[in-house]
Amino acid sequence: MTKVHNFSAGPCILPQEVLKKASEAVVNFNNLNLSLIEISHRSKDFVEVMENARNLVKELLNVPEGYQVLFLQGGASLGFLKTAYNFLPKGETAAYINTGTWASKAIKEAEQLGKANVIASSEDKNFNYIPKGYGIPNDAKYLHFTSNNTIAGTQFKNFPISRIPLICDMSSDIFSKEINVGDFDMIYAGAQKNMGPAGTTLYIVKESALGKTGNNIPTMLDLQTHIKKDSMFNTPPVFAIYVSMLTLEWLKGLGGVSVIEKMNQEKADLLYNEIDRNGLFKGVVEKEDRSNMNATFVLTNDSLKDQFDEMWQAANISGIKGHRSVGGYRASMYNALPKESVQVLVDVMKSFEEKYG
Amino acid sequence: MTKVHNFSAGPCILPQEVLKKASEAVVNFNNLNLSLIEISHRSKDFVEVMENARNLVKELLNVPEGYQVLFLQGGASLGFLKTAYNFLPKGETAAYINTGTWASKAIKEAEQLGKANVIASSEDKNFNYIPKGYGIPNDAKYLHFTSNNTIAGTQFKNFPISRIPLICDMSSDIFSKEINVGDFDMIYAGAQKNMGPAGTTLYIVKESALGKTGNNIPTMLDLQTHIKKDSMFNTPPVFAIYVSMLTLEWLKGLGGVSVIEKMNQEKADLLYNEIDRNGLFKGVVEKEDRSNMNATFVLTNDSLKDQFDEMWQAANISGIKGHRSVGGYRASMYNALPKESVQVLVDVMKSFEEKYG
Repeated sequence: MTKVHNFSAGPCILPQEVLKKASEAVVNFNNLNLSLIEISHRSKDFVEVMENARNLVKELLNVPEGYQVLFLQGGASLGFLKTAYNFLPKGETAAYINTGTWASKAIKEAEQLGKANVIASSEDKNFNYIPKGYGIPNDAKYLHFTSNNTIAGTQFKNFPISRIPLICDMSSDIFSKEINVGDFDMIYAGAQKNMGPAGTTLYIVKESALGKTGNNIPTMLDLQTHIKKDSMFNTPPVFAIYVSMLTLEWLKGLGGVSVIEKMNQEKADLLYNEIDRNGLFKGVVEKEDRSNMNATFVLTNDSLKDQFDEMWQAANISGIKGHRSVGGYRASMYNALPKESVQVLVDVMKSFEEKYG
Repeated sequence: MTKVHNFSAGPCILPQEVLKKASEAVVNFNNLNLSLIEISHRSKDFVEVMENARNLVKELLNVPEGYQVLFLQGGASLGFLKTAYNFLPKGETAAYINTGTWASKAIKEAEQLGKANVIASSEDKNFNYIPKGYGIPNDAKYLHFTSNNTIAGTQFKNFPISRIPLICDMSSDIFSKEINVGDFDMIYAGAQKNMGPAGTTLYIVKESALGKTGNNIPTMLDLQTHIKKDSMFNTPPVFAIYVSMLTLEWLKGLGGVSVIEKMNQEKADLLYNEIDRNGLFKGVVEKEDRSNMNATFVLTNDSLKDQFDEMWQAANISGIKGHRSVGGYRASMYNALPKESVQVLVDVMKSFEEKYG
């Protein structure tokens, strides 16, 4: 097979060995002569998958005692609503930082229960920076933010320091760098970047923070429902959880989050250095807030677009078209993307400069 | 590989050719040299999967004009809540038929918005029959029922005739027999029986019936959100939808729902005839309400349990242990289960009779 350099923003590249194992499990899982997807989720074999996946999350992120790990459905988009139901008493106020599309959607769902106080926003500059220097109101029930903004290409390099509970949508950079889970009341993340395929959403939640809103929470939106049933209140998304488990095993095998963090930094440095060095390209966002996951950049001369597009396509590069709200290009460099692929892109950028610079 | 006769109640048996194609797509999808699960859901290749899946549902079930087909997340369990939000104005009443565990859970979620009037129930006999001869109040907003009850092993052979809109959870018998979609305002079904793997839920909804409650519906629970975005408001469960598409293609190739209905009837007759003929076995539910999907039965002499268990296990039969709330045995005979497997079970039952009868 021709190697494709997959810079897709998500669903995104997964490790080859994970794909191979997942493919095998779809025809014969654990030598049962049955597919992973045609056995009961309550079978010993699948319960073990769920437990392994949970334990790998705990191990890789050093999850402290008192936190629960859940694999649910609905994406972070349903997480926005679950956040409100589980943490925001009806009519009360929560603080939100607006750093783009996903943060805005989270804000909208908070209004279902109470009031979302947007204490900081980078909307004035099309979300091309991470707000700083804002005050955090002590009477808000929590502060919610989006750690990495896939569309704009910004990332919190330092998390807010807050006296009120922190809740974070980490969909696009969880497992890419070390974090201190103990700083958060809840972290949630759609799987389809660094954890696995689309179809499951991870929740890491401080159990003692739940059950305090007095809200009448619908069963499926109540995190306590799922904690009581070990993420099996209803049939879980078996395949997505299994592939997540494989991906986390792969990450553990590499040496864990501290190792991948270094590799991700090297990949990001390689690409951003070229963007800054090469006169034909320009980064989209403030340098200090650049995402190590999603690098957004544009051509300095738009009339060369067809020429550049032809060159990266010829190099078997895939998925670097920018999001329609930003334009230009977006190279996503998630955990499973090898440095070699970034080098191929950088080489194309250099050749492009030689030819048209 | 030794052939396993997979009677699992769900997630359940899927056609071998579907599993093979799904396995291939996990390493190389559409000859893209990329996995199905590592490409953008907005790529041409995946958008085509979504469209095919939708069109297959419409074709196989003769879905009339004016209905929308959606593939969402959350299982039927989240469907219980979506039903209430989308069809039950706050404070108003809907009618429910209680035929078991799943129906009861649907009833509970209706109470989030208004009142669930349980107009008929078989709870008095551990749900071993389908209620009949009840009145349907004309002022209820809709009548909700569960067409097949996986746990008890009962099935509506005739759907209620009603002047108020019908809403049905068809999770465990959709695509197993012909239905008239036009009789319903909404049908919904978790995929993991006759449609595909766990991880997506089908909704077939009459579009003109939506948007009439005046409810303030959270974004992700609002079916209109998903209709506007062709089931891609957020990242869909790509793999589950793809495998559902393959399974529906397989069904179409077989000749469609009318053909599988006949095959399912033959399988059910084969097993139920043996249950009735063989003095060592007894069916659990009323004969006229027996499910063609899930046959529940018990031994007439419990002391022979170990002997029977040993015999079916030796025949490579899997998944016939009854649900804990019913006991005994449950043989699920979903679309993909070959008649040959039912014959193997029947043969074991005959041998068991010869030996211990």
